[in-house]
Parts: sequence; structure tokens; C-alpha cells
Amino acid sequence: MAGIPIRFGIIGCADIARKVSRAIQLAPNATVSAVASRSFDKAANFAKANGFPPDTKIYGSYESLLDDPDIDAVYLPLPTSLHLKWAVLTAQKKKHLLTEKPVALSVAEFDQILKACEENGVQIMDGTMWVHNPRTHKMKQFLNDKEQFGQLRTVNTLLGSAHFKRCEEEFGKQLLHIFADPDFLKNDIRVKPDLDALGALGDAGWYGIRSILWAADYELPKTVTAFRNPVLNDAGVLLECGASLLWADGKIATFHCSFLSNLTMNLTAIGTLGTLHLTDFIIPYQEHEASYTTSAKPGFNELVTGWVQLPSEHTVTVDLPQEACMVREFASLVANVKKNGAQPDKKWPTISRKTQLVLDAVKASMEKDFQPVEIVG
Amino acid sequence: MAGIPIRFGIIGCADIARKVSRAIQLAPNATVSAVASRSFDKAANFAKANGFPPDTKIYGSYESLLDDPDIDAVYLPLPTSLHLKWAVLTAQKKKHLLTEKPVALSVAEFDQILKACEENGVQIMDGTMWVHNPRTHKMKQFLNDKEQFGQLRTVNTLLGSAHFKRCEEEFGKQLLHIFADPDFLKNDIRVKPDLDALGALGDAGWYGIRSILWAADYELPKTVTAFRNPVLNDAGVLLECGASLLWADGKIATFHCSFLSNLTMNLTAIGTLGTLHLTDFIIPYQEHEASYTTSAKPGFNELVTGWVQLPSEHTVTVDLPQEACMVREFASLVANVKKNGAQPDKKWPTISRKTQLVLDAVKASMEKDFQPVEIVG
Repeated sequence: MAGIPIRFGIIGCADIARKVSRAIQLAPNATVSAVASRSFDKAANFAKANGFPPDTKIYGSYESLLDDPDIDAVYLPLPTSLHLKWAVLTAQKKKHLLTEKPVALSVAEFDQILKACEENGVQIMDGTMWVHNPRTHKMKQFLNDKEQFGQLRTVNTLLGSAHFKRCEEEFGKQLLHIFADPDFLKNDIRVKPDLDALGALGDAGWYGIRSILWAADYELPKTVTAFRNPVLNDAGVLLECGASLLWADGKIATFHCSFLSNLTMNLTAIGTLGTLHLTDFIIPYQEHEASYTTSAKPGFNELVTGWVQLPSEHTVTVDLPQEACMVREFASLVANVKKNGAQPDKKWPTISRKTQLVLDAVKASMEKDFQPVEIVG
Repeated sequence: MAGIPIRFGIIGCADIARKVSRAIQLAPNATVSAVASRSFDKAANFAKANGFPPDTKIYGSYESLLDDPDIDAVYLPLPTSLHLKWAVLTAQKKKHLLTEKPVALSVAEFDQILKACEENGVQIMDGTMWVHNPRTHKMKQFLNDKEQFGQLRTVNTLLGSAHFKRCEEEFGKQLLHIFADPDFLKNDIRVKPDLDALGALGDAGWYGIRSILWAADYELPKTVTAFRNPVLNDAGVLLECGASLLWADGKIATFHCSFLSNLTMNLTAIGTLGTLHLTDFIIPYQEHEASYTTSAKPGFNELVTGWVQLPSEHTVTVDLPQEACMVREFASLVANVKKNGAQPDKKWPTISRKTQLVLDAVKASMEKDFQPVEIVG
């Protein structure tokens, strides 16, 4: 596999593309080869501002990038409403696809994208980064430990304010600052129905749902019931919502996501014997190490005035940032197709599709007066 | 107020009475004066085992303790089903009442107890300890800080396994050990319908509901909707359940409580600007200090690969264990009635009643196919 890296073309100069293009440069098996915007100058400025290699090709249209035979894979950070068109075209041009999440506005759209990828033999993966963090693998080992964790019973995620805003006045260019900002709610693309119509559900909610599925070994719930508190803006975009998910064996999970509340990324999974807990699961507090807490078979002292077996904190060293781990994994699958003639991997698109299925069910439950919606895998 | 302490009589020798009788002895304004069991020997042994003062009176019936003119207040740790009878009798005998939670099986029962207390001019308080911990007051200051926390948007509590079992074989008498034990589910009084018919809802659920009300400044929600996952044992007692609570201003809270999952006591309150979080809110990990985490206006670094403004942990020194703080508060209110002729305080019974109202609504929602139930204060 070592040798020539997978050559990425980036379609669109979204903020998130700054982070992912850096990740492509950090991943040992990938390189940024081209960037496209609808404006040549915008693409050129983006390449310069983000320190792309001098030989990076600059395109003033997405189509021209897709026609470049020297591009192996496309990273697609466009707003969700544009995914269907550009993802399908990417596949038809035989480019492998790393796409931002949510992959699509619905499972129906998702399936069109998937079909195009399958017909053209290209790999698809969504841009959920945290699952690729080495911390995530360590946490999963704990959840799989029947002696320490037992059987999974409950998962809960609380997600506040995935929206963010530069506060250049306040902090300078070093920081992004996050808070419930009335301007954001009107102007950010994530709350415009023609761009990211799923709002908080597609943004933070995607992570909440994915984390629940992750904890449940990607077993789909039987039913999904939306909470009765969705908050929508004037354009009908979700700013806040949540749901409960039930499995046939009695497991329950709940998530709540909001653009209206403080940045919060809590994940708790409770088993019969143990509890996993962390408060930064989507983006770790720090890039190069990440922590989580486990509690296994705790109890109380004699008079029940304190605990025995206190929870313990575990810290995992992260040599490669989680987004670069994601790119490395994707590029490795692409290389396997490209160099070894392997079939594209099915694990990641299967997980993406399940996430999208649950997301659809949350919306369907809202439309059906918050009644439970059965999930049909 | 200093001077003669409030004289407590303890009715029933439940496990929890060991902790609370120690608290009565620790509180500067209270003393254990008598203990009653249906068996004289059991009461005598309990007094001895728990180091009660040598002049503690021992009674072989609850009635005889209630007839003792030298008792000011009764601590009632009997199973919930017995509260109505003994709480009303306590009030009629002009004894002030510190009762274990849940106060009653329903608001209807609660109101009978409250009426008896009011008619007889005695103080009533329920035995929820954590609200009296100095940590709780500090946390409330954070929630009240409009600059750091903003407006409350979401509260979530996750409560695992309030049941516990001595594991003498495994740990000796030093420890209580907690896990999902089939024997417990059949034999513990908290899961017997004739004793503690509310099961996990009355036990852990009471704390979850109280913590939500506490965070919401005891404003009642508009509606309560039970989750569709209640687990009941063969006798119809709740082993696991949860609900969402909605307020008119869009706030949402969720709680989940279970006898089937690992000991977990998570409380998270999310405001527009800040987040409060702790994982031991009912019983702090340690008796003499207690911690919690606050996060205020956090954000991301330039590339959104890490956070700025990390959450900070705060530790509060607890000079008097929280259960002794509770006794001190109760005894102080009793002293105010007894020595100053004041009216009994209404704050605590009002809070207890609201907790019971929500608890009733959770049950009602379950009975109405998990539809929302309006709360009428």
C-alpha cells in the first residue's frame, strides 16, 4: 500500500474543508491534488490560505475537477442539499467519495448516491471523524467487556450548539466562539432550508444518532419516537430536537441536539455492570490526547455516604488527529480498490445508511404527531 | 436556636435509618431520643449497633413512640405504602415529620399527609439529601448566573441501579455492592407492590424528577410524556422507566431511571451559554468534599480540532455530611415552630408536592399509552 498516495480533489471551500484538507495532508497515504470552487479566485485563495502544495490544481468549476483523470477521490464539503447531484456525478466520474455528513437529506437520496457508487465501483465514506479516533476503539473495548460493562441498557447523548461564529472582535483570528447568536440562526447555511434543510438534526443529531448506533454495535432500534419539543425557525428548519430509540431487547437510547444551547457533547452508555462517559466525544478537548471515564461495578460504603470503586479516567494518545485517521482509513480502502482490484468496503456505507434511516425516522415521528415509527432496515 | 436540640424518634429500623440516625447525631441541633420497631429486641439491637446515646428510649411499637411527650420529631423510613397511615398519625400526635421519599404513593395520598401536618401545625420535609449539600447551593449559583449560564434549555438525568445488596461474601461488611441481581428484583422491598409499589420511579426516579425541578427553579413543566420502555416485574412494579418534561418556554428535560443498570447518577443542565455537569449528584463520591463541572461559553480553536475554554471542575468542602445538613435544616424549622411559635415552613412541602405531581404524571402517561399528560399544579 505504501508508495503513491491517494490524490484528493476538494469540491467547495467550506470552513470544514480547512480542517479536512489539513487532515489529507497529514494522512500518510493521501495528498491534496486539486481544489475547486465556483470561483477560480476563491479556490486559489483557499489553496494558498491553507498551505496546499504548490502544484495543487485550481479549478473554477466542480465539473472540471471531476474531469481531471489525475484525481482518485473527492472530498465533498458542500451543503447537504447539493450532495445528491455532486455525489452521484463524482461516482459517475469514477472518483471515490468522502462526503460530509449528513450524506443526504433522506434515505431515498442516500440510496441514489449509494447506487451510483456501487455501479461505478467507488468507495463511499461519510465524514464522521470521531469514530476514527483511537479513543473510540478503546471505549468500544470497554463496551464489549462483558465482565466490566455487562449488557448495554441505555445510551444518552446531549448535544448543544453545533453552530459557531468567529468572534474576531473578541478573540482575534485564533478562536471560533460558539453561542446562541440570533444572526447565526438566520444566516448560517445549516439553518437555511435550501442548503441544509435538516438543521440541528442533520448536524449535531447525526453525531448523536451515530454514537447511539455505535454503542449498540450498529443494531438498528425497533422504534424511534421524537420528543415533543422540536424548535423550528421561520423557514421550517430544525433548531432543536430529540428522540428516544427502543430496541426489541428493552435497550433504550435518547438524544437531544440543539443550536440554541451551549456547546455540549456528552455521551453516556450504561450497561448492567458498567458505565462509559465522556463530554467531548465529537471533537476531543485536545487534538493529541483524548480521555473518557469508565465505571465498573461501583458500590457504596457501609453507611452509603460515599462510593467505592470510583470511576476511572483513561487518556489515549492520539498521534494522528482523528480527522487524519479518517482520511487514512478512507485512502486505505480506496488504495485497496485502485491497486488491488478489491471491491469497495461495505462497512462504512452500511453504517452511514443506518444513521440516515434513524434520522428519517425522527423526522417521520415528528410528522406523525410524535408517535413511534418502526425502523425497517 | 442554640440550646436544647430537637429530639427525634425513629420509626422503623430500615437500612437507610442507619445513615439518617447518624446524621441526627451529627447535626448540632438534633438528637436521637427514641427508636421504635414492631419488635422491642430489633429496636434495642438497632440502637446498640448504631451507637445511640445510652438513654435512648426503645419502643416495641410505633404507637408507643408517638405517645411519648418527649419526642419533638419523627423520622419515618418505612416503606412508602405505610407512609400515609404513619405520617398522618405522627402529625396527629403533634410530632414534626421527616419522612423518607417518595413521601406517598400519589399526590392524593400526599395531600392527606400534608393536610394532617397543616391541621396539627407540624413541619414536614422529605428525606432528599442531596439538595442540602453545600455543593448544590454552589451549583445553583452557577445556574442563576445569566452571564455564565444564560437561560436554562435542557436538563437530563441518568440514574442506574439504585438497588444495592451487601456482598459480604465478596467484600466483607465494609461494602455494599450494587448490580442487577435477580434475587433483589424479587425480594427487595422496593420492588414489592404492597410495600414500595412505585419501584424505580419512586426510588431513583424521585431524585431525577427533583433534580430537574431544582434546575428549573421548581417551575412545573407543562406536560410529561413517559418513554415507551417501562420494564415491570411480575408483580407490576417498575424496574425501569423514563420521561420527557416540557415547559411552556420550550425547555425540555428527560430522566431515565433503572434498577437494571449500573450505578449511575448523572445530571446535566444546559443553558444558552453554559453547562453544568456531575456524575454523583445524589450521593457524592466522597462524604467530605464534592465536585461538579461547569463550562461557560466554550468554543473551538481556529481549525476546530480542539476546544478553548475547557470545562472547569469545582470542589466544595462538606464539613457536615449532606444528610446531616438536611437534619440541621429540618430541626431548625422545627425549633422555629416549637420555640418561636412560627408557622411551619411551606417551601419544602411545596417542593415535595411538585415532585410527587410529576411522578404521578409519569404514571398517568404510561397508563394513557405514553401520551403527554398536562400538569395541573
